[in-house]
Formats: sequence, structure tokens, C-alpha cells
Amino acid sequence: MRRAMTIPASKAPAVSAGARYFSLIADKLGRTEEVFRQALASDVPFIEEAGEYIFSGGGKRMRPALLLLAAQMLERDGDEEVTYAAVIELIHSATLIHDDIIDHATLRRSRPTVNKVWGNSKTVLLGDWLYTTAMNMALSHGNLAVVKRLCEATLRMTEGELLALDRLGAIDLTSDEYFSIIERKTARLFAAAASVPALMAPAHQDAAAALSAYGRALGTCFQLVDDLLDFTARETELGKPVLSDLKEGKLTLPLLLALPRIDDRRRSWIAAVLEDGAFARVGPEQIVEVVEAEGTLDETRELAQSYAEEARKQLASFPPSEARDALEFAPDFVLHRRH
Amino acid sequence: MRRAMTIPASKAPAVSAGARYFSLIADKLGRTEEVFRQALASDVPFIEEAGEYIFSGGGKRMRPALLLLAAQMLERDGDEEVTYAAVIELIHSATLIHDDIIDHATLRRSRPTVNKVWGNSKTVLLGDWLYTTAMNMALSHGNLAVVKRLCEATLRMTEGELLALDRLGAIDLTSDEYFSIIERKTARLFAAAASVPALMAPAHQDAAAALSAYGRALGTCFQLVDDLLDFTARETELGKPVLSDLKEGKLTLPLLLALPRIDDRRRSWIAAVLEDGAFARVGPEQIVEVVEAEGTLDETRELAQSYAEEARKQLASFPPSEARDALEFAPDFVLHRRH
Repeated sequence: MRRAMTIPASKAPAVSAGARYFSLIADKLGRTEEVFRQALASDVPFIEEAGEYIFSGGGKRMRPALLLLAAQMLERDGDEEVTYAAVIELIHSATLIHDDIIDHATLRRSRPTVNKVWGNSKTVLLGDWLYTTAMNMALSHGNLAVVKRLCEATLRMTEGELLALDRLGAIDLTSDEYFSIIERKTARLFAAAASVPALMAPAHQDAAAALSAYGRALGTCFQLVDDLLDFTARETELGKPVLSDLKEGKLTLPLLLALPRIDDRRRSWIAAVLEDGAFARVGPEQIVEVVEAEGTLDETRELAQSYAEEARKQLASFPPSEARDALEFAPDFVLHRRH
Repeated sequence: MRRAMTIPASKAPAVSAGARYFSLIADKLGRTEEVFRQALASDVPFIEEAGEYIFSGGGKRMRPALLLLAAQMLERDGDEEVTYAAVIELIHSATLIHDDIIDHATLRRSRPTVNKVWGNSKTVLLGDWLYTTAMNMALSHGNLAVVKRLCEATLRMTEGELLALDRLGAIDLTSDEYFSIIERKTARLFAAAASVPALMAPAHQDAAAALSAYGRALGTCFQLVDDLLDFTARETELGKPVLSDLKEGKLTLPLLLALPRIDDRRRSWIAAVLEDGAFARVGPEQIVEVVEAEGTLDETRELAQSYAEEARKQLASFPPSEARDALEFAPDFVLHRRH
């Protein structure tokens, strides 16, 4: 609440505040990178090679950062949270790698995808190996509640992906279905990342519930911004083609909100892209025109802001600290991210 | 040792002894089936549907049977070993499902494979879901040593599959590579199945080590028999085409043993099948002729027998019991299986 009023919507302050908050966990994020890298060591040459490729590809490390900030707010300070931060990034990486097979994606973070470089077969197995390595590492601190939470988030993600696949290309996707999909696909892993530190000994169930709700709202906000970026970002910033969601058969919220309001002609444009899996009969600018005319980009942004607000509210019960400030700021960071 | 001398090599006694020993764990195997089936329940329609398909497809349930017999020998009698028996079959199922994608297999247990029915994308996700569900279930009894053993066996299986994939179609595969692959792909899960009951509280480390060695030898024996069956079984018994391994680019031991001894002409037959991925220029009968002429089917069978013997030896330290008798008999059952 406070943050929403004091932080202006322009980007520069967000970046500098981001840098300040990042410094709180810079050391632990560095250690997380080390643990992540070491986890990919193997006597199987392909795993080494592909592991190095994944590691060097980087990523926003949003989920580890979230986990480490929550740990700091709860005054957890050891190796355990660093392990879990690496684990959550491993799970996230495994998901991306398998998703790229399913989406036939060839580009991620401006580089060829793992499936593009090594083919689907090895990529299926690499994803399996990453998931299992993540679970194996998570077990190393002997905290079953944490491992269970990570398992459950992974299950929900897989289910979300399956639900999405079932409705791929369907123009009659409902908002309920959409939210059920993104809740599982994205929000649950954010919720796990934020709440895992509260499950470390001694566990704080109330803190875990609040942080889980925080992560869930933040993850939903993150996904809505993802939907927006598919319309508004340039290819160079995003590392993948713009309007790729629609081309891949995925109806994002700006289109979902517009569909019931538009005439048959414009509806047929959207249907054509879904059908063709390409901008063959219809140009991307026509689709952008639809969501701009209907104002659904703004509506989606407003909804993302309300999830950001919802996330911040969950932090009210925690005593003030720099880490809490950082977590309060995270929704703004997510709202203003450009890739 | 005793068994090897008292059980004749003919099939009928093996079957009737098998039935007798099976009755020791029939009740628990039934409960395992129930737990397995319940584990596949989901609010995602595809998971329900595909889960029912997998469940109804059956399987030999070798690994659960092994686990339950080891549990009985160690006088573990509760729900915990039933959970782990279901878990190990879930892991096995996940592996098969992903392997079938990789092998482009269309037939398993005489039915269309999951990837054939639902396509690769959903099958990748279903495998992920099964692996994670297995781990989640394994966690339910709070025994970290067990979950770690299952994780590690799963990692080794995935690595074995990757190593195999790296050398797919290679006529210069070495015996060392071959054994490293089957140790990871097959033997390690058998070892986990046999040793998990010894890790249940109170853990018996010596028993775990002996049972792990037992499972590993039995699993190796099982894989060698698999290699043999690809030559000797009929399609109707095996549920998949005969000599399918070679067609898929996999050199099995009978061929590996024959290769250094045969002339260039016959070597070129094997190379042709590996190259074509089909019996295009060379017939299956020519390949069978090679291994028969070189006697390498017999050599492989002898090697399988020596692994069976090695497995039995590991049971010497356990007090006599019906369950121990059954475990001593298991290698014979494996040696005489026809599919």
C-alpha cells in the first residue's frame, strides 16, 4: 500500500530501488549460482555440456531472489535457503526445457533452445534429470515439509501445462480456465519460493500461509505482465518473437477480455492466427489494434496492479525490515519489467 | 546355490514355484495396485484418462514384487512397503513412457503406446507428473533415506538412457559401455526395489547393502534375458516386434559378443540394419544366424545365469524363510521368463 503510493510508475526509480534491494541478497544469489552450477556436474558428457549451456544462458533468477528475500525477512541465514534457491531455479529450468519441446520453441533468452540444439529425445531426459536432481538436492537438509511443497508446486505446474495444452488453439477458452491455468503454471512456484523459508526449522505456519499468498499473487501479476509484454515488448528485449503466444495457440488475457466485445470480423482475425499458427492471413498489427481499441491492455495492466497490491497486503503482519521493503517493492519491479 | 541345483531348467516347475511364491505377496500386490491406481487420480481429465490407460495396461510388476518379498523377508509388515512398491512402479512407468517417446515406439504390452495415442507433448508432461507424484508419495512416510535411494536410482536410469542415446546406432559400442548403460538403465532400480525395505525404520545397513547387490545382479540378469528375448521370443509373447532392439539402433550383448569375431560381410549386415533402422537390405533371420553360428546367445544366457547365481549368493546372510526362498527363486523366474 505504502509503496504503491510512494513509488512513481516511471522506470528509473524502479531500477535504482531494484539495485538497492538486490544488494541485500547479492552474496547469496552468487552462492546460489555456484550451487546451481555444481548441481549440473555429471559424469555423463551430454549433461555436463547441456548443463553449462543452461547455466550460461542465465535468466532473471526471480524465484531464487524471492526465496532469499523471504528467508532474510524471516532472519534465516545459512546454507539451507541457498540450496532451496538453487533447487527452485532447477525446477524452473526443467519446466522451461520441457515446455520448449511442447511449444516447438527454437529461441529462448535470445539463444537456440536446448531442444533446438540437441533434439527432443535428449531434452526430455535432461528435463527428467533436472527435476530429479532438484528433488535430490532439496532432500539434503532433511526437511520433508519443504520437499513436499516443492513436489506439489511441480505437480501443479505440470497440470497447468497439461490444461493449457488441452485448450491450445481454442478461441472459446474461458477466463476461469485461463486463471486456473496460470495459477498452476506460474503462481504456484512463486508461492513455493516465497513460503519455503517459513517452512525451515522452526517452521512458522502463519508466515508460510501469508508468504504463500504473497507469492501466488505476485506470480499471477508476473504472468499478466508476461501477457502484456507479448504485445508491447520488442523482440530484442524479450529474446523471443513478439505476439508469439497467440501464434502458439495461447489466448492471453488482453485477447480473452476483448473477445466477447468484438464483432465477427475482428474475431475471425484472432481465429485465423490460432488456426494458422502464424500471421499468414492477418498481421500482428491488426491484433494489437484490437486490444488497443478495446482497452484490454490497460485492463490487464490494472488487474496486474491489483494482484501486486494483493501481494503487498500479505506482508503487513511482518515486522518492518529492509527485506520486507524489498518484498513490498517486488510487485513494482514485476510490473515495470520489460522482459 | 541350493536353488540352482534343485530347480531344473525346464519351464513348468518354474511356473508352479512362481505361483507358490507369488501367493506370499498376493495380498500386498493387490493393495499396491490399489495405491498405484489411486495415485493416478487427478482433477485434470487427461491425467485421469491416461492414468487409467496405464493402469489397465498392466505389467509384470517385477519391481513391486521384489520390494514386497524383501520387505517380507525382513519382517516388515505395514502400509509403508506397499506405498514404496507403488512408487517404484510409478517411477518405472514414467521411465517407460518417456523412453517410448525417445524410441518413437508405437507398441508396448501389445497396445499402442501413450505417445502414439496422445502425442509427444502430453506424454512428456504425463511422465513428469508420474515422476513427481512418485516422489511425493514416497515422502509420505517421512523416510528420507528411502526417498534419496529412489531419487538416485531415477537419476542413474536417466543417465543410462542418455548414455545409450549417445551411442545409439554405433557399431563400435564397447562391452564396458554396454554394461555401464544396463547397470544404470535397469539394474539400479532393481537394486533400489530390493534394498528399500532394509532402509525402513529401524534401518539395517548390512541388509540394505546385500539386498542392493542382489537387486543389481538380478536386474543385470533381467536385462540380459531381455536381450535374449529380442532374438528368441515371438511378437505375440513380447507385445512388441522381435529384433526391435537392433532396428532401434541398440546393440544387445549377443551381437556385441559376436562382432569382434565375424567377417566383414556379416559385420556389414549388422551395420546395414543399424544404418537403415529397418530390415531393408538384410533380413532378421540373417542376424539370428550370426548369433547362432557364433554361439553368443548361449554365452549371453550363461552370463545371465552367472548374474542369477551372484544374486542368490547375496541372500546367504539372511535367516531361512519362505520369502528368502522366493527371492532365491526370483533369478530362475527371470531366466525362464518368456516376455
